[in-house]
Amino acid sequence: MHETSTYLQHHCDARGVHYLTLNDPGRFNALGSELLAQLLAALDAIAADAQARAVVLAGAGKAFCAGHNLKDMAAHPQQDWYEALFAQCSQVMLAIHRLPVPVIARVQGIATAAGCQLVAQCDLAVADATTRFATSGIQYGLFCATPSVPLVRNVPIKVAMEMLLTGEFIDAATALRIGLINHAVPSDALDAAVERLVAAIVQKPPVAIRMGKELVYRQREMGIDDAYRLAARSMAQNMMDEAAQEGACAFAEKRRPSWAQPEARD
Amino acid sequence: MHETSTYLQHHCDARGVHYLTLNDPGRFNALGSELLAQLLAALDAIAADAQARAVVLAGAGKAFCAGHNLKDMAAHPQQDWYEALFAQCSQVMLAIHRLPVPVIARVQGIATAAGCQLVAQCDLAVADATTRFATSGIQYGLFCATPSVPLVRNVPIKVAMEMLLTGEFIDAATALRIGLINHAVPSDALDAAVERLVAAIVQKPPVAIRMGKELVYRQREMGIDDAYRLAARSMAQNMMDEAAQEGACAFAEKRRPSWAQPEARD
Amino acid sequence: MHETSTYLQHHCDARGVHYLTLNDPGRFNALGSELLAQLLAALDAIAADAQARAVVLAGAGKAFCAGHNLKDMAAHPQQDWYEALFAQCSQVMLAIHRLPVPVIARVQGIATAAGCQLVAQCDLAVADATTRFATSGIQYGLFCATPSVPLVRNVPIKVAMEMLLTGEFIDAATALRIGLINHAVPSDALDAAVERLVAAIVQKPPVAIRMGKELVYRQREMGIDDAYRLAARSMAQNMMDEAAQEGACAFAEKRRPSWAQPEARD
Repeated sequence: MHETSTYLQHHCDARGVHYLTLNDPGRFNALGSELLAQLLAALDAIAADAQARAVVLAGAGKAFCAGHNLKDMAAHPQQDWYEALFAQCSQVMLAIHRLPVPVIARVQGIATAAGCQLVAQCDLAVADATTRFATSGIQYGLFCATPSVPLVRNVPIKVAMEMLLTGEFIDAATALRIGLINHAVPSDALDAAVERLVAAIVQKPPVAIRMGKELVYRQREMGIDDAYRLAARSMAQNMMDEAAQEGACAFAEKRRPSWAQPEARD
Repeated sequence: MHETSTYLQHHCDARGVHYLTLNDPGRFNALGSELLAQLLAALDAIAADAQARAVVLAGAGKAFCAGHNLKDMAAHPQQDWYEALFAQCSQVMLAIHRLPVPVIARVQGIATAAGCQLVAQCDLAVADATTRFATSGIQYGLFCATPSVPLVRNVPIKVAMEMLLTGEFIDAATALRIGLINHAVPSDALDAAVERLVAAIVQKPPVAIRMGKELVYRQREMGIDDAYRLAARSMAQNMMDEAAQEGACAFAEKRRPSWAQPEARD
Repeated sequence: MHETSTYLQHHCDARGVHYLTLNDPGRFNALGSELLAQLLAALDAIAADAQARAVVLAGAGKAFCAGHNLKDMAAHPQQDWYEALFAQCSQVMLAIHRLPVPVIARVQGIATAAGCQLVAQCDLAVADATTRFATSGIQYGLFCATPSVPLVRNVPIKVAMEMLLTGEFIDAATALRIGLINHAVPSDALDAAVERLVAAIVQKPPVAIRMGKELVYRQREMGIDDAYRLAARSMAQNMMDEAAQEGACAFAEKRRPSWAQPEARD
């Protein structure tokens, strides 16, 4: 599978790993309405792909993503135009959140406003060590309200508040320390660091990964009693999967689990 | 505007930045009932001040704040006296939380018990690098129950538990690492570090800052779907503000936004 | 009190500190059904012991705990067997959570899967600096669903997700940095570090510690208004305890509080 639309490159490898690349480098991959629509369509297609194993979300050019297209926004001073735009953007973010497979952000250059939100919303994030992050909307009079949703669910509240109120940049080392990203690596090690996570995920049985991602976010919003009830039930179901049965047998027999890999396609 | 009551100094500068200074240094600014009443009245007045832009909360003398006045508490061994005191103190904390403008704690010396709570409850906090923090009530047989409310919403749960159960001090470097404060700086750089945050905030349009603070805390208590719905709506409203329109136009025209500053007063 | 059952050592010292040691070192203290039953019975007994002050949870041998017994699980490929096992394990975890006294994990070697969950679920944790931690179930096709419950309540979400999806180990320095443990110390300092926490806790009045632990977790699941209401009420009640009265008087009289220690027993 190989598909290129105007603003989004979409490629899926033989393992079921989908590579989505924001491809409007001249505008730092600003999240205009067309790009958001193409991204949502791609995420919907991946959600429907039973062979999908993981997604890598990247940005072409010097910047990962500079957030919304303020030029477009200046040209449409209408509240319903803005409501439609932010609702569409939130739909994309929730599609990442609900996608049955893990989404890894591959980040370089800058990740600002809704671009920083994309990083926060992905399940995992790896960044070039020179990347800078900001919820910078406030610099233009627009508080990063929707970016604050995943931000406060990723990083300590006072750090989030300072980023949101000042709009100032933080560097990749800080982003790592506060929990916004998983790894910060030299530019020439970025793809290898992403691949290391991808490889770790695709080695695991799909059923367990899919059940797991959904469970983590669902139980996180519950009280602890309900969370344990749901998790215990999910885990018992997971154990009935043949891959988990093979895993437990392999453990008992002191050998590596032998899991069938899904058939290659391309 | 310039006002000094017995236990609280209150000064507002030409920018609309309110400086509140706990002023009972002989008792390390202990939060007695009169001081709490004066602090609540000041916060209520600031909430009603449409020109207010930010609050800096400081403590006069060697300590930021040593928490409740245990001497007073020893003198009033009545449950309703205690209930009234803790309810009054919680009202002050919630007034900080709900205040439409950001509150920055300026911290030195020690911040213990309800003094540590004040730091945790403020939106931002900057401390002298020699400051020590503790939820020390347990040293006197009184578990820091109300301080635990903002504490567990600021720092990792095991760190909070150790502070609460042992009552031991942590230093400013630790407070920074765990997310209790935003910056730790040398004593002679403390006012400059506070001013840097204040300046960053007052440069931004008031509507966006006010909407933003409220939104962040409201959405944080919601499930992620509701959070996005509320944030997307708030952001669309924010975009209709003339400051945001000017910001977006400035971006489109590659110039700095030109925002009218509120008229000076003094 | 001194009791040894097959898989669990249980000793209580003169101060009311209960030492529970998982004692199946040949299987890295795997949480089989018998061990879980003995652990739950011990926790229930401690919950009923009005003289109990704290619990230290340790593991005999080279590993703290390697999680569930996959060999047993391979031998019982029935969904209700799994449901019963995970429900039983969750009951143990919730018994730690609800125990009226603090539970300190004393960790060495490895803490994997439900063993890592035990660390996350305890109120405090001290580890040998060479300990390694992992939510490794996914390596065998079983996503660590129930371990994810306390994990996401201890550490930043992206770190939790990486641990859960990859199953890879983190070292003790990382565990400390992300908030999974309170202290990492050299092997020969492990018991002293645990004792330092125990001593700090047993010096404090029991009523305040018991009220405090319960309050922290209850208010943490509430909205901030309800949290403050509950905390203020709890604190007023705590103040009426004679130990808190003595503490406040001692403060007023500038002396150390003089608290009766519970009678020794053994």
